[in-house]
Amino acid sequence: MKERLYIYDTTLRDGQQTQDVQFSTDEKQQIARALDALGVDYIEGGWPGANPTDNAFFDAAPKTRAKMTAFGMTKRLGISAQNDDVLAAVMNAGTASVCLVGKAHEFHVTRALGITPDENLGLLRDSVGHLVASGREALFDAEHFFDGYKANPEYALSCLRTVLEAGARWIVLCDTNGGTLPVEVGRITAEVIAAGIPGDRLGIHTHDDTDNAVACTLAAVDAGARQIQGTLNGLGERCGNANLTALIPILLLKEPYASRYETGITPAALKTLTRTSRMLDEILNRVPQKQAAFVGASAFAHKAGLHASAILKDPSTYEHIEPATVGNTRIIPMSNQAGQSNLRRRLTEAGLDVAKGDPALARILEEVKAREAMGYAYDTAQASFELLAREALGQMPELFEVKRYRVTVERRKNKYNRMVSVSEAVVVVKVDGEKRLSVSESMDEDGNDRGPVNALSKALAKDLGQYSALIEDMRLIDFKVRITQGGTEAVTRVIIDSEDGQGNRWSTVGVSANIVDASFEALLDAIRWKLIRDLGA
Amino acid sequence: MKERLYIYDTTLRDGQQTQDVQFSTDEKQQIARALDALGVDYIEGGWPGANPTDNAFFDAAPKTRAKMTAFGMTKRLGISAQNDDVLAAVMNAGTASVCLVGKAHEFHVTRALGITPDENLGLLRDSVGHLVASGREALFDAEHFFDGYKANPEYALSCLRTVLEAGARWIVLCDTNGGTLPVEVGRITAEVIAAGIPGDRLGIHTHDDTDNAVACTLAAVDAGARQIQGTLNGLGERCGNANLTALIPILLLKEPYASRYETGITPAALKTLTRTSRMLDEILNRVPQKQAAFVGASAFAHKAGLHASAILKDPSTYEHIEPATVGNTRIIPMSNQAGQSNLRRRLTEAGLDVAKGDPALARILEEVKAREAMGYAYDTAQASFELLAREALGQMPELFEVKRYRVTVERRKNKYNRMVSVSEAVVVVKVDGEKRLSVSESMDEDGNDRGPVNALSKALAKDLGQYSALIEDMRLIDFKVRITQGGTEAVTRVIIDSEDGQGNRWSTVGVSANIVDASFEALLDAIRWKLIRDLGA
Repeated sequence: MKERLYIYDTTLRDGQQTQDVQFSTDEKQQIARALDALGVDYIEGGWPGANPTDNAFFDAAPKTRAKMTAFGMTKRLGISAQNDDVLAAVMNAGTASVCLVGKAHEFHVTRALGITPDENLGLLRDSVGHLVASGREALFDAEHFFDGYKANPEYALSCLRTVLEAGARWIVLCDTNGGTLPVEVGRITAEVIAAGIPGDRLGIHTHDDTDNAVACTLAAVDAGARQIQGTLNGLGERCGNANLTALIPILLLKEPYASRYETGITPAALKTLTRTSRMLDEILNRVPQKQAAFVGASAFAHKAGLHASAILKDPSTYEHIEPATVGNTRIIPMSNQAGQSNLRRRLTEAGLDVAKGDPALARILEEVKAREAMGYAYDTAQASFELLAREALGQMPELFEVKRYRVTVERRKNKYNRMVSVSEAVVVVKVDGEKRLSVSESMDEDGNDRGPVNALSKALAKDLGQYSALIEDMRLIDFKVRITQGGTEAVTRVIIDSEDGQGNRWSTVGVSANIVDASFEALLDAIRWKLIRDLGA
Repeated sequence: MKERLYIYDTTLRDGQQTQDVQFSTDEKQQIARALDALGVDYIEGGWPGANPTDNAFFDAAPKTRAKMTAFGMTKRLGISAQNDDVLAAVMNAGTASVCLVGKAHEFHVTRALGITPDENLGLLRDSVGHLVASGREALFDAEHFFDGYKANPEYALSCLRTVLEAGARWIVLCDTNGGTLPVEVGRITAEVIAAGIPGDRLGIHTHDDTDNAVACTLAAVDAGARQIQGTLNGLGERCGNANLTALIPILLLKEPYASRYETGITPAALKTLTRTSRMLDEILNRVPQKQAAFVGASAFAHKAGLHASAILKDPSTYEHIEPATVGNTRIIPMSNQAGQSNLRRRLTEAGLDVAKGDPALARILEEVKAREAMGYAYDTAQASFELLAREALGQMPELFEVKRYRVTVERRKNKYNRMVSVSEAVVVVKVDGEKRLSVSESMDEDGNDRGPVNALSKALAKDLGQYSALIEDMRLIDFKVRITQGGTEAVTRVIIDSEDGQGNRWSTVGVSANIVDASFEALLDAIRWKLIRDLGA
């Protein structure tokens, strides 16, 4: 018989305290629906009354299976719970569950609130009592609990007992400043339970200020806490909250948790975890963290040659879980540590079959190494790697040849006396023995200059004879530039990500001291890869 | 009496296994010097023989107080340690310490190596024995130790005993696939010590696949391990290695570690931690992780209104350590008084005195916010910030005006039928009421094309009338390009670092959809800052 753990998501409330993060009402609704589909038990939607976005969200909160929860703080001194307008705004959101934060640290009671410890107990009792009398499920966030317990365990415990007696369903132990380490969280949680607060009424809320938020949460669960608070992608104040994107797969897939506990999250929903994490980054317009546990693009990327060859024999050698269980995928990148078996696998994936021991393999590895020493990077630029391999194998079809190009950037005053720029590119290619000249400029539909690489890209694509139709659905989606060391000189490395109408995405690389040349090289590779793919060459 | 903990950094070896990370030899040297200044005990420099960069690094490794360590693997079967060419390459690097990775998991021995468990023990004994006989300090990385111990504790322990008897100074317990959770790492480490392997010979090497690498490391230290392996910023294979940037401040500042242990890192060196972390990101041209524990830009940023006002009363309310101890700074939202006093300090540093409450302060803050929303970044580009502030204060001297420019990049065949590029720039400036035209091309002394920005930079500097003499000692030392979001469109951000003969170094920023424009803007700012500095304007 498994014990139930409850997942409480606070992405929409504590997650919004992340620097630079500000959700719109629409975005909050979209995230709430995603959390509900994932199967969390509680969604803390915000603080009604604290800002217009949160009010608008609760006014039109999506219907969820998860318990929608409003957040607020305990009532102030000298006013009844019924008459506290801040608390009233929280109640008016009409949620079945309400979570109130209050003090459990004597120093903060006297220092920050300026009231007596007993007066604080009164606030807690009345506030939670008010929720219960109103028929709401009551949760209490015990702010600074661990620091408070260390300073004065008796007072901290008396706060918990007070809200328990007042009828709180959950008492959440908060490590508000993120400074408590896992061993201490575990010990104090166990002492709280030994002091008479039942574990199945206890929640844990940690922050990542020492990079230990996940471990602190697990330590509290080990000690007996049964509600877990956290955020998607570890959003939150300062270094963030406990990362549910890591905690959820741990609880579902790793021992001793998987055998001991159950949650509201199904194996099928777990397979959407990576997608849900990326969706949140999309909303925030953030580059997803490649190294994120479980859901990062690098989480199952095997770069070391030794690892890559072992993975080919048996994935369990270097993977602690199967990537598909969390909706992620394995990556075996090319790099100068790559071994031949890794290389063969990559070639097979590209439709290039090379027998084991073929001398071409060593030649390709040499070429990769030599070019990486010049500044190329084939980890990401898989498509350029494929072209390089084809060249080495004599399997590179004749497509077209670029004879020359010229690109001009001019900045001057326009007729309104404002400085404006325009770029113009001329490209000369030879296709099927015929020379073709194309010219393009860099303006987008709104008349804004997009620069010389844009002009070159358009001129190059403009007339490639029989191939033009094939690249019509191609689109440049990202362009990354870094200065790197190529031999003894600093050179520019450009990586271009492209996609087409068939859903293919591919990356190519160019390197030169001249940024325009480097970009052009990556562009050319992108087009060549697409043509070979479409021609089935 | 405190016990000594030893910090072993593997940024240059395991850190290089990060997807998309590839250090040049120069960068490795720069990082090694920074690690040495920080005070780590060991620097694992790479795998001699595995790739040209690592060879070049060991050929000219910087002299360090830290023990420079070469990494490799145990010898192969059927060949003596003396005759194993892979091991020989590692030995030939000539480092005083050598770390060899070998198997301690019976399944991997039989499955991945295809040899018997006893044959593996022979490899371990002979390889470590060879190091010791050659007078090297021997370290042994027990790959997959925790999984191996769970599968067959007796065999895993016999591997450790074998290398201990062969004379290994350190035996490192590696959680190679990152799947072991902290409690298990603690329990197994304690069992290893109970089985007779001394804790002061044990190291711990964890990975962040469950977001628990730091906690796993602490659990091993709690159990008695005394060497800590990790990387700066948590670089490393898949989700990364244990993050030394979090572990070091925990060990130095947090209890029970601070009272119980000592390391080679001084409080003064700890104050450089944030700077060291950012330096690594600079080298990698990565955006520093704002939410990183201790060193992230958000680590001490207090966004919640309640927190911010409490912080002003007493920082200890929401900060578990003093930010300055790790060289980081507190951030209070720009809007309030603390934001303005911060700004005044920055202006004073730039020699611009502004009285408290001057309305120009709010104006500058607004301008910074608006431009940061467009993609500018003034954290690094101090010189551009200074120019912006001068403009807002009406303290920007008239220097020169750029009327227009044109830059052309041409790629075509030269007379030897090889494709070559050349860039040419024309710049028109007005100085002292007089128009001046300059033209330059992009060839360096060796006849290599350095690209359009180089040509523009030379043309701009060529004739600035009375100012030309002042900028003669100016030199562009770095050029960083990042694609970022400016409003709704992707734009290019260029940051240029310059220096002069007086030892000044300054950074400027330019933003545009056109990379040449963005570069030109940053170049212009660099020259303006230098002129103002030299003219004492």
